[in-house]
Order: sequence, then structure tokens, then C-alpha cells
Amino acid sequence: MLDKINIVLSNTTHPGNIGAAARAMKVMGLSRLTLINPSQFPSAEASRRASRATDILADAKVCSSIEEAITDSRLIVGTSARTRSLPSKLVTPRQLVEKILNHRDNVPVAILFGTENSGLTNDELHLCHYHVCIPTNPDYSSLNLASAVQLIAYEMRLGLADVEMLPSQNIGDNEMMISREQMVGLLSHFDQVMQQTGYVIPEYKKQLDQRMNRLLSKAEVTQSELNILRGFLSSVGKYCERVAAGHSKE
Amino acid sequence: MLDKINIVLSNTTHPGNIGAAARAMKVMGLSRLTLINPSQFPSAEASRRASRATDILADAKVCSSIEEAITDSRLIVGTSARTRSLPSKLVTPRQLVEKILNHRDNVPVAILFGTENSGLTNDELHLCHYHVCIPTNPDYSSLNLASAVQLIAYEMRLGLADVEMLPSQNIGDNEMMISREQMVGLLSHFDQVMQQTGYVIPEYKKQLDQRMNRLLSKAEVTQSELNILRGFLSSVGKYCERVAAGHSKE
Repeated sequence: MLDKINIVLSNTTHPGNIGAAARAMKVMGLSRLTLINPSQFPSAEASRRASRATDILADAKVCSSIEEAITDSRLIVGTSARTRSLPSKLVTPRQLVEKILNHRDNVPVAILFGTENSGLTNDELHLCHYHVCIPTNPDYSSLNLASAVQLIAYEMRLGLADVEMLPSQNIGDNEMMISREQMVGLLSHFDQVMQQTGYVIPEYKKQLDQRMNRLLSKAEVTQSELNILRGFLSSVGKYCERVAAGHSKE
Repeated sequence: MLDKINIVLSNTTHPGNIGAAARAMKVMGLSRLTLINPSQFPSAEASRRASRATDILADAKVCSSIEEAITDSRLIVGTSARTRSLPSKLVTPRQLVEKILNHRDNVPVAILFGTENSGLTNDELHLCHYHVCIPTNPDYSSLNLASAVQLIAYEMRLGLADVEMLPSQNIGDNEMMISREQMVGLLSHFDQVMQQTGYVIPEYKKQLDQRMNRLLSKAEVTQSELNILRGFLSSVGKYCERVAAGHSKE
């Protein structure tokens, strides 16, 4: 689905922004870039800012008009920071994902980004089915072009890529959470040592038990941490016994 | 709530990234920036990339250790692209918002970003309650530092700012959607002209009526658009009458 998303940059002034946009796309798994009348392209500055996403730049389509850029697109979306005189279907980036998913036939989507200073022209916005508006601070909405591409590409990846969102963790047995049986054993060991050292006040014992259970539950204790805690408790118990034995000898 | 979020950049190498991070923060309404051992700060390059977010740089706290940076923080979160040998509570940026919202007492949160090339050190990660992992393309996960700050700041704004996500549109009466009564009148006008021009085939009339209703419903026709359509239909009707009158004269 991500290969159906065409990022279209119209009349971009700074070549560095084209490179940074390519990097922002690739890091989210987007690959189709179209440039309408870029001020300067190809450009060494664009390649530098693209880092290792220069393949996106090499494959970019360069057009001389918006109509040429979107001719194969079916769903056309314009990014817009402002509201216009002619109201249109205004959506958040997250709502846009829903709109795209509504088209089960996997339609080609063009997402248009205007020139750095003034955004898309009214003529460009009129061609769009939706206007997507990235939520920003109303007192300072100066979102960098590549940052806007980054945020849209991120939402596309989250919403459209059929992948695990978090890398899988290779967890050894030592890092598995303990079982309830082990938890009961641990709580009982704490209780035993607390009794031994005189920490437990009988009328508050139930409350103490509950709090210890809550604390250790929140900690999501692992096998290796269980070993540390039980080792520590054993050492306390043995020390107390040694001290008690010393006293009894005196 | 956004004023409780402290963005902590550790050992940042390129001053431009500090400036771009400040801009990324401000555009999403974040203001607290802490720098641990920045290579170069203050810096003209940082100020240039910050655009009009130089107030964030001016207010930034500069520290010489991670402990100093997070001493007032209660919830500590590290950004991490990799999984580590010691598994920790790994969350997506969106899940992180939920974790922060679970703390109803509005706790100060520190979100740590490591150095450009290698990220946070293991020592830094061990101080964190959660590791947040931004979903990226597994074949190219080279997210720029300022882009990472941008994405996290965006999720914080979406999840924590009590604001309207879309700017309100100042809609004139002409741009209000038409009522069902007006829709019925429009459909009836289409039907009348289609009958007049001989477009309607009786056995398919019901299907045609349904499709016209669906088309015009999807279009969410406004008052001004209604005027255009009805004006057009009237002109067709009158033209047909003129033509018919001409024929009858012959």
C-alpha cells in the first residue's frame, strides 16, 4: 500500500528540503517522489541532505505542471496550513489514513506539498479531494517542508504498512516475567524476613501485604530480578540468624 | 500538559540539529529544552535552523550530566532505534502518550534523545522507565535527530494538548451543505431534464435514481453548488424548449 503513495513537491525553493524530504520518506518506507518545477534539481545539497536515500532522488519524476504530476493519481490530497475562502474536506493526517483505507481497491494517492513560503496555490488546492492539515501551535505554525513530509509519511506507515510497529525483542529465559507461583514465593519470603526483623505490625499486615503485591506487580519482576531479590532476602535472613546466634552465645 | 514535557538532547554533535529540534518543538507547542554536553552551543547555525524558535534556544538548560538533566523529572523516557540486551518496557510514541496520561498528577516527563550516530548509551537507557521506539523502515531506519523530535512532539501535541485538531472554518451560508429537501428538489430537477432529453429508460429508472442520489450525496453539495447545478439544469430545460418550439414552427 505504501508504494501507492506519491509525494508531490510543488515549486520547492531550497534543494536541501528535497533531499531531507527524500530521507524522511525512505525512513518510513515511501519511495515515490514527484517534483514540479524545483528551483534546482538535481543538486549536490539535495543529495547531501538525503543521506542514504539518494535512490529516491534518482527515481524522482520531474514535471512542469501539477496536471502532469497527478495524471495517474485517483485520490488527490493537498497539505494546507491555512483555511481557504473555498471550504473543502479538511482532515487530520490520521483521518486521511482512514479515507485512504476506505478505497479498498488500492488507488494511487498523490499528496501535494506547496512551496516553502506560501504553500499550495489556490489553483492547486482546488484539484484536491481532501485538504490535510497537520495540527500545530497556532502561535507558531512554521512547519519545515521536510518535517511536514516526515509527519505525513509517519502516519502513512502507521496506518497503511502491514508490519509490526515495535521490533521484536529477543528475550532470554532470564528476562521472562515471573509466574504467579514465583510471585507468591517472593512475597512470602519478604514476609518471612519482615517478621524476622520485626518490621511487621500485626494490625497493618494485610495492608502491607497488599502494598508489597502492588509494588512488585507494577515492577513486572523478571526471573533474573527474582534471583536478585531472593538472594538479598536470604542474605538478610542468614545475617539475622548469625547475629541472633552471636547474642545467644553471649 | 505540554509544558511538563522536557526534551533532553544528549551529546548532540551538530548544532544545526539543536536548532531544527527547537523549531520542531515550538511548532507543536513544546518549550522545555535541555542539552547535555552539546558539542557547540550557543551557535549561529543552531539559531539559523531554529528559524523563529530562538526563544526555545535562549531558555534551554545546559547540563554536564544526564543525572543533572533529569533530576526534577518523574517519568523518564528514552528514544531508541534498537533493542538492547536488557529488555525494557518498549512502547510506540502513541502508547507513550497513554502512559503519560495514566499519571493524572501531571508529572514532569523527560524524553531523552541520544547522540546522532549511536543514540543513547546503555547507561542512559538504564535510567529510563520506558523506551519509545518510532516505527521505521527496517531497511533504512536512519531518522534524523530533529525529525525524531518532530514526530515525538507531534504525538505529544495530538495526545496531550487540549485543543481543536483542525482550524475552524468560517463558512458562509453559501458553503453550508444543502438540506434533504433541497437535495430532493435537485434530484427531481435532474429527473425532469433527463426525461425531457430522453435519457431515462423506464426499466432502469429506479437504478438511475439511486445512483444520482449516491453521487450527489458523496459530493456533499453546498448551497452555492446547488445554485450552479439548478441553473445549468434550467438552461438545458429552456434550450430544449426553444429547440422544440423551433421544430414545431417548421
